[in-house]
Amino acid sequence: MCLTPWEHYSWLAQRGMIDFAGSTVVHSVGGWAALMGAYLLGPRLGKYTKEGKPNAIPGHSITLGALGVFILWFGWFGFNPGSTLSGTTPDIGLIAVTTNLSAAAGAIMAMITCWLRYGKPDVSLTLNGALAGLVAITAGCAAVSPVGAMIIGLLSGIIVVLAVEFIDKVLKIDDPVGAVSVHAVCGAFGTAMVGLLAIDGGLLYGGGTELLVTQLIGIAAVFAWTSVLAFIVFSAIKATVGLRVTPEEEEEGLDLGEHGIDAYADFVTKKYAQI
Amino acid sequence: MCLTPWEHYSWLAQRGMIDFAGSTVVHSVGGWAALMGAYLLGPRLGKYTKEGKPNAIPGHSITLGALGVFILWFGWFGFNPGSTLSGTTPDIGLIAVTTNLSAAAGAIMAMITCWLRYGKPDVSLTLNGALAGLVAITAGCAAVSPVGAMIIGLLSGIIVVLAVEFIDKVLKIDDPVGAVSVHAVCGAFGTAMVGLLAIDGGLLYGGGTELLVTQLIGIAAVFAWTSVLAFIVFSAIKATVGLRVTPEEEEEGLDLGEHGIDAYADFVTKKYAQI
Amino acid sequence: MCLTPWEHYSWLAQRGMIDFAGSTVVHSVGGWAALMGAYLLGPRLGKYTKEGKPNAIPGHSITLGALGVFILWFGWFGFNPGSTLSGTTPDIGLIAVTTNLSAAAGAIMAMITCWLRYGKPDVSLTLNGALAGLVAITAGCAAVSPVGAMIIGLLSGIIVVLAVEFIDKVLKIDDPVGAVSVHAVCGAFGTAMVGLLAIDGGLLYGGGTELLVTQLIGIAAVFAWTSVLAFIVFSAIKATVGLRVTPEEEEEGLDLGEHGIDAYADFVTKKYAQI
Repeated sequence: MCLTPWEHYSWLAQRGMIDFAGSTVVHSVGGWAALMGAYLLGPRLGKYTKEGKPNAIPGHSITLGALGVFILWFGWFGFNPGSTLSGTTPDIGLIAVTTNLSAAAGAIMAMITCWLRYGKPDVSLTLNGALAGLVAITAGCAAVSPVGAMIIGLLSGIIVVLAVEFIDKVLKIDDPVGAVSVHAVCGAFGTAMVGLLAIDGGLLYGGGTELLVTQLIGIAAVFAWTSVLAFIVFSAIKATVGLRVTPEEEEEGLDLGEHGIDAYADFVTKKYAQI
Repeated sequence: MCLTPWEHYSWLAQRGMIDFAGSTVVHSVGGWAALMGAYLLGPRLGKYTKEGKPNAIPGHSITLGALGVFILWFGWFGFNPGSTLSGTTPDIGLIAVTTNLSAAAGAIMAMITCWLRYGKPDVSLTLNGALAGLVAITAGCAAVSPVGAMIIGLLSGIIVVLAVEFIDKVLKIDDPVGAVSVHAVCGAFGTAMVGLLAIDGGLLYGGGTELLVTQLIGIAAVFAWTSVLAFIVFSAIKATVGLRVTPEEEEEGLDLGEHGIDAYADFVTKKYAQI
Repeated sequence: MCLTPWEHYSWLAQRGMIDFAGSTVVHSVGGWAALMGAYLLGPRLGKYTKEGKPNAIPGHSITLGALGVFILWFGWFGFNPGSTLSGTTPDIGLIAVTTNLSAAAGAIMAMITCWLRYGKPDVSLTLNGALAGLVAITAGCAAVSPVGAMIIGLLSGIIVVLAVEFIDKVLKIDDPVGAVSVHAVCGAFGTAMVGLLAIDGGLLYGGGTELLVTQLIGIAAVFAWTSVLAFIVFSAIKATVGLRVTPEEEEEGLDLGEHGIDAYADFVTKKYAQI
C-alpha cells in the first residue's frame, strides 16, 4: 500500500491511522479552523433576521460556481492519485476510480436529499455533494473498494445537506459556501469510514475494531488540536488588528475594498441598480 | 486495431462496421432522439413569428458558451484516445492527433462557411464547427489518417452550418444549441466517411464498397431504431405527465422553476430590466 | 539535454543559444510585433485624457480573466514539458517543476510589487505576474534548477509591473492586457537569465560569459528583425485596408461589429444602462 508522508511519521501513523491524501490532515484541519473563524467573525450583514431566522444570500453566478466545482473535481485527480507520488504505481488507477465514484455518488445523493427535504433539486447543494464525496474519499481512496467508495460518497451526500442545515439553522454560524460541512464534517466522516470499509483492516472486512478506534482517535485529536489553536489565533487577530471589514466595505463588496476594483466592471449588478 | 465493446458484440460489429468511440452509437443516438424530442416539444415561445420566420434567441454569454466547447474539446481526449481503454497502446497518439485535427478543421471551415453565407464569422456556429469535427471523427479516429481526419473535419464544418439552417428554417424545429446538426447529422456523416477513408478497407484506399455499405446500413439502422423508439417514448411522456413547462415558467426561466434559484442572482438581466 | 527544432537549425542555435520552448522565438516575437501594432493602431477612445494622463479601462469580469490565466497556466504544461516531444524523457518532470515554480513566484512577487507601489494587491497585475513567470521560464525550463526558476519568476513578477506602468505612462502606448510587458519584456528577460542561471554554461555556475553573450545577441536579433518587419507590415495594412474600426463600432463593441452578436446578450451592461 502507498503511504503519504504523514502516514509515515506522526504518532497517529505509528498507531496505523489511514489518511491517504488527507481527509483529516488536510480537509478537517481547514474545516475546523474555518468553523472557529466563522464563529468569531460573525454572520454577514442581513444573514439572520432579528428573530434569528437565516436568509439565503445566493451566489452571483451558479454557472461560475458549478465551473469552480468541476475544476476542483478535475484537480482532485492530481490530489488523490497524485499522492502516490508516482505515475507508475498500480494503485493509481484504483485511486482514480474510487475518487470519481465517491464524487459522483455524493452529487447524486445530495441532489436527492435536498429534493426530498426542500422540494427542488438545489444546484449549489448538489455541487457541495460532489465536493463532500471527494473530501470523504480522500482518506480511504487507496484502501477501500469501488463499492466502498460509492457507499462513502452516497452517505457524504446526505450528511453534507444535513450539516449545512444544522450549521445554518441550529448553530447559526454563517458559512456562505458550506465549507465546514464539506471539509470538516465530511472529512471526519470519510476518515471514520475507513475503519469500517478498508479492505485490509476494516471492521466490515473482518479486521476487528482496532483500525476504527485508531481512526476515531485521529479524528478527535485533530479536531481538538485544530479547534483550540484556531480559536486562539482568530481571537488574537480579532483583539488586535481585527477580523472584520467595516459595514460600508462589506456592503460595497470586498473586491473594491481589498483589491480596488469591481469584479464585474462592465455589468450592472443589483447593488447598483437598486433592485 | 483497437476495438470498443460495441465493435465486438453487435450484429453490425459482426458485419465489420467501424464506429470506434461512437459517432453513431453515442452521438447519432442522442441526436436523433433529440430531434424527436424537439419536434414533439415544439419551439420556444417567440422563436417563430406568425408567418413562420425564425427569430434568433441568443445565449446569455458567448464567453461561457465558448468555454463549454473548450471543456468538451479537452474532454474528447478522454473520450476518443481513452476508448483504447489503455494508456500504452501505440494507437493512442494517432487517435489524439486525428481527433484534434478534425476539431480544428471543423471550427475553421464552419467559420468560413458562415462568413460567406451570412457576412460575419458567427461565434456560436464556429464553436459548433469544432464540435461537429469532434463528433464526426469519433467513429474513425483510429481508422483514418491525419489527412483523412482533416477532410472529415472540413466537410463537417460545412455540413453543420447548412444543417442548422435547414432544421431552423425548413423543418422549423427549434433546436436551441444545434444539437441535432452536431450530434445526429455529423455523427452519421463521420460514420459514413469511414467507409471512404479507412486506411484498412476504405473505398478511396482500394478497399471496395463493402465497408462503405456496412457503414451506411449501420447509420440507417440506428436512425430507424432510435427515431421510432424516441418518438414513442416522448409521445408517451407528452400524453401522460407532459413534456413542457407552463408559459409563465418558460418566460421566467427554468432555473427558477426547476431549481428554485436564479442562475445569475447578482446581475441585472434584460428580463428584469425590461430592455 | 532536449533540443527543440529551432535549437537545431538556426544560426543562433549554432552559436549555442538556449531557448527551449520559446521565450524569445515564440513570446518575444509576438510581444514585439504587438508593440508595433499597438503603437500604429493608437490608444482606445478615452484611454488618455487631453493632458495625456492614462485612464484605467477595467475588464468586464475579473473572474473570467482569472479563469483565462489559469487555463493558460494549465496549458503551459503542454507547452514546456510537451516541448520535449516525448512523455518518457526524464527531463519532463524537472521542466514541469521549473515551469510551475516560476509561475507561482511571478504571481506572488507581482502581487507584492503592486501592493507596495499602489496600496492594493491588484488582481489583474497579479495574474499577469503568473504569466510573466511562465513566459520567462520558457527559455530555460530545461536548463535551470528549481531555485533558478524561482529567481527568474520572482524577478519577472517585479519587471512585469514596472513594464506595464512604463508602457502605459511613459511610452503612452495603450496595451489593454499588458501583452508587451508579459510576452516581449519578460520573454527577453527570461532568455537573458539563462545566460546567468543555466546549470550547464551559465555565468553564475562558472560557465563564463559566452552563453550570456549569445543569449543577448539572440534577444537583440529577434527584437530588431521582428520590430522592423512588424512595423512594415502594420504600416502597409494601415495605409491600405486600415488598422482601426470606426469610432462608432469601437464604442458599440467589436463583438457586434466583427461578429454580429452581443457577447453577453442577456445581461444589462453599463453601456446600455448609461451608468
